[in-house]
Amino acid sequence: MKDASEENAAGMKPETLAMTLAGIGIIHSPFKEPAGMPIQPVFAEGTVGTVEVLPQYAEGLRDLEGFDRVWLIYWLHKALPGPLRVIPFRDTTERGVFATRAPCRPNAIGLSCVQLLSVSGNVLTIGGVDILDGSPVIDIKPYVPKFDAFPNSRAGWCDQSPPSARTHADNRFMK
Amino acid sequence: MKDASEENAAGMKPETLAMTLAGIGIIHSPFKEPAGMPIQPVFAEGTVGTVEVLPQYAEGLRDLEGFDRVWLIYWLHKALPGPLRVIPFRDTTERGVFATRAPCRPNAIGLSCVQLLSVSGNVLTIGGVDILDGSPVIDIKPYVPKFDAFPNSRAGWCDQSPPSARTHADNRFMK
Repeated sequence: MKDASEENAAGMKPETLAMTLAGIGIIHSPFKEPAGMPIQPVFAEGTVGTVEVLPQYAEGLRDLEGFDRVWLIYWLHKALPGPLRVIPFRDTTERGVFATRAPCRPNAIGLSCVQLLSVSGNVLTIGGVDILDGSPVIDIKPYVPKFDAFPNSRAGWCDQSPPSARTHADNRFMK
Repeated sequence: MKDASEENAAGMKPETLAMTLAGIGIIHSPFKEPAGMPIQPVFAEGTVGTVEVLPQYAEGLRDLEGFDRVWLIYWLHKALPGPLRVIPFRDTTERGVFATRAPCRPNAIGLSCVQLLSVSGNVLTIGGVDILDGSPVIDIKPYVPKFDAFPNSRAGWCDQSPPSARTHADNRFMK
């Protein structure tokens, strides 16, 4: 408890909280701008792209064959640094940004559960792409249903989205 | 295609790929070291912690009530910068690190789908904690089954993990 209190908000040391990342690759997709891009893989059936991992990291891709899906963690490089309340694509009401998947976030980190179609050397071919072309990749993790699938989890305001809610983006969050 | 090729591995501009993040808060948990810590929320039943969000971001937490779970994206601040092949906790064979959820990764980003027990001001109380005390939080996103739950997804080598596979960590990946 002492350690924790030394690191709490009041005493949080800036050096603990500044992190520098280096992209491990880049995502190639059909989408040059948000307008018309699916907002989640589930709305992106049939859209295919690739993850081009820098050659020096290719060895880390071994054993991905056999996974139907992977998590891509990436930089939302064209997202506006936004306010803490946003009107998300699937709603008409302002929501706290951490209760949405909107791309304008204090740290512009994207998270997409894409289909893994094939692995060839340092390139993953992916399906269900909801990501802008040129987005830098930060991490790739395997999708493991035992860890990640909670189909009966309640989803707050998202459970109230009408059938007519948007499935594709516009440019509202773009730089 | 021209844009894409200009940004591919050969031509990737370093400035596109260097990202700086600022922590938005800190995780308080019962775990001071990896040894004995659950390796995923699913193995962490009954373990409770908190996410203390910096006050200036508290407004972004609105509307999280009603979500059973949230994604925490956080910095694995005590993980060893590791090799690209690791022996994961739930296996006895070396695997490519991107085919594992091991904490030693080129970018030390953790992803946990924790239970959201309550929200009070700038503090989330969370269950199923598999995170070291003091970990800086990078982002919080709502868990939405429609976007995130694929219970029938194949999970490669993880599908072969024996019932005796580890559910709790040791210090193999610690700094």
